[in-house]
Amino acid sequence: MARVILIALGGNAIKQADEKGTSEEQFRNCWKTTKHISEIIKNLDKEDRLVITHGNGPQVGNLMVQQKLAEGIVPAHPMDVVGAMTQGQIGYMLQQTLRNHLKKLDLNVPVCAIVNQVLVDKNDPEFFGDKASKPVGNFLTEEEAKEMKKNNPDYIIKKVKPNGERCWRRTVPSPDPISNLEAEVIKKLVDAGVVVIASGGGGIPVLEDEEGNYQGIEAVIDKDLAGERLAEIVGANIFLILTDVEKAKINYGHPKEKALGKITFEEAKQYFEEGHFLAGSMGPKVKACLRFLENGGKRAIIASLDKALEAFKGDSGTIIEKD
Amino acid sequence: MARVILIALGGNAIKQADEKGTSEEQFRNCWKTTKHISEIIKNLDKEDRLVITHGNGPQVGNLMVQQKLAEGIVPAHPMDVVGAMTQGQIGYMLQQTLRNHLKKLDLNVPVCAIVNQVLVDKNDPEFFGDKASKPVGNFLTEEEAKEMKKNNPDYIIKKVKPNGERCWRRTVPSPDPISNLEAEVIKKLVDAGVVVIASGGGGIPVLEDEEGNYQGIEAVIDKDLAGERLAEIVGANIFLILTDVEKAKINYGHPKEKALGKITFEEAKQYFEEGHFLAGSMGPKVKACLRFLENGGKRAIIASLDKALEAFKGDSGTIIEKD
Repeated sequence: MARVILIALGGNAIKQADEKGTSEEQFRNCWKTTKHISEIIKNLDKEDRLVITHGNGPQVGNLMVQQKLAEGIVPAHPMDVVGAMTQGQIGYMLQQTLRNHLKKLDLNVPVCAIVNQVLVDKNDPEFFGDKASKPVGNFLTEEEAKEMKKNNPDYIIKKVKPNGERCWRRTVPSPDPISNLEAEVIKKLVDAGVVVIASGGGGIPVLEDEEGNYQGIEAVIDKDLAGERLAEIVGANIFLILTDVEKAKINYGHPKEKALGKITFEEAKQYFEEGHFLAGSMGPKVKACLRFLENGGKRAIIASLDKALEAFKGDSGTIIEKD
Repeated sequence: MARVILIALGGNAIKQADEKGTSEEQFRNCWKTTKHISEIIKNLDKEDRLVITHGNGPQVGNLMVQQKLAEGIVPAHPMDVVGAMTQGQIGYMLQQTLRNHLKKLDLNVPVCAIVNQVLVDKNDPEFFGDKASKPVGNFLTEEEAKEMKKNNPDYIIKKVKPNGERCWRRTVPSPDPISNLEAEVIKKLVDAGVVVIASGGGGIPVLEDEEGNYQGIEAVIDKDLAGERLAEIVGANIFLILTDVEKAKINYGHPKEKALGKITFEEAKQYFEEGHFLAGSMGPKVKACLRFLENGGKRAIIASLDKALEAFKGDSGTIIEKD
C-alpha cells in the first residue's frame, strides 16, 4: 500500500534559538533540514506521497519588530498578513533547498509551497475574555506593557513570567483549526505527485463573517494541530513531527523522568490526560498525534530533526501506534 | 476550443499610488480587482482555464523600508527573500478576495497562490557594469546616495532625475526571465481546473550556480515578461495585461498622440521598434505581448483594470492579434 507521509517541522528546522535570523542562517538551516527530507524521499516508493508543514514563530516575531519600528513611515500589517509573508519566505527557502538536494540525487520530484488559509471558529473559547493563550513578540516591562495597551486597547497583554523586569507579553488567541481552505488544491497536488509545503505557521487564520466571507484574524494556530488537519486531507498514514528533542518524556524534570520509545495510542492518551506534556511545547504535539490516530492515521512519530530518517524507519523517536 | 487566459495585474490592482499601503487599503483594492476577475470567470466555459500574475513593486518597497529601519535589531533580508514575502502577502489577499467573490456567485472554482521562482541567466547583460536598469526604494539626496554606497559597496546607485534635491536611487538588475522553476506544478494545477496565482512580482529571481544549485539573486524581473513565460507554460491563447490606462498610445505627449484599438502584430512590432512605448512602463508590456504572439499566443490585450470584462470580450483596450 502506498504511504502518505506528513512531516511537521519545528522552529529549529529554519532558525536556531541563538541565531538572529539572517537569510544566510535560515538558508543554511533549511539546507540541513531538507537534506534529511531528501533522504526520506530517496527511501520512498514511486507511489508514496509526502507533504510538509512548518512553524513560523521566530519569523513572525522578526517581521513584527520590523513593522513596529517603521510605523509612522510605512503601515504595519496585522498578524494574518504577516503570517502570509512568512509562508512566502519560509516556503521559498524550503522549496529551493529541497529542490537542490533532489537535483543532486537525480530525483525528479516537483516541490511547491502554497499560500494557505486555515478556518477557525469565531466562537472558539480562545477569542473570549482573556482566554487567549499564545504569547507573541518581545518580553515587555510593566511600563511598556501599559503603553502598548494604551495604544492598542484591543490587545491582551499578560504577565507570562512571575519575576524579573521583563515579564509581560502580548498574547493572542490560538484557536483550534477546523478545516483547511485550500484542501482541494492540496489534494490535487499530492495526487499528482507533488511534494507540497502547506499550512505554514499553522496556516493563515481566517474566520467566516456574517456575510459568508472569509477574512483574516489576529491569531496563531498551532502548527502541529493544523498539520494534523492537513494529514486528514491527504489521507496520511504516517505523521512525523520533527523537533529539537529525540523523544517525548514523562515525569519531565523529575527523578522518575523517562523518555518514551514505542508506545500505544492508549498509553499516549493516558500520559496526555495525566498532564505529562507541557502546554505550548510537547502538549500540542502529543495532542496532534492522538487526533491523527483517532482520525484513521497509522503511526505518529515525535523525533529529532537530526534523526529524521531513522525515525521514519522506526529506529528513533517516540512512536505511537494504534492497535 | 477551450480558452486559457493569463491575466497580469499591474501595481494599481493592489495598491493605489496615493495610498500608504495599509492592509485595509490593499484588501479593498484586491476586492475590487478580483470582482472584475470573478466576472470574467463567470463568463468562461467549464473547460476554460485562468492563471493570474501580479506586480509587487510598492510592497517590496514598503518591506525594504521596514527592514532597513530595523537593521541592527533584526537582520534585513535580500531582495529575493523580500520578493518571496510579497508573494505570500499579495497571493493571500488575491486568493481570499477572489474566493469570496466566487462563493457569492456560487462558482466552485478552487484558487491558489504558489511560491514561485523564475530562472535568469547569470550572463544577462543587466548583471554587468552599470547596466542594471530597475530603480528600487526611495529617492535619495546626493549625500544619502554616497552614504548608501559607502555602506554597501556592491550597490549601483544612479541619478534617475536630472534636477531636484532627491534624484538618486538604488538600481538593481532586471534580467530577462528564462524559465519558470515551478512550471510542472503550475501546469498540473491548471490542468486540474485550479485558478493559479503564480510568478508574483515577476517571480523570485534565481540563477544556477557552478554546482548546479538554484539560488536567489538581488534583482527584479519584469512581471509582464515573466507573465509571458507563464503564458507559454500553460499554453495560454489570451494574454490580458490590466493596468491603469485604457489603451497603449503612439506619439505619447505629442500633438499626433493616438490611442491604439485593434492592431495587428506587425503594426505593434513596428510601433515598438520605432520607440513609441516607454521603457519601464508601456514598453515591457508591448514587448511581452509581441513575445506572446510570436510564441503561439492568439490575442494579447492591454487594458484598464476597470474595463477588464469589456476588454476580455474585445470591446475595450489595445488588442493585438496575429493574422
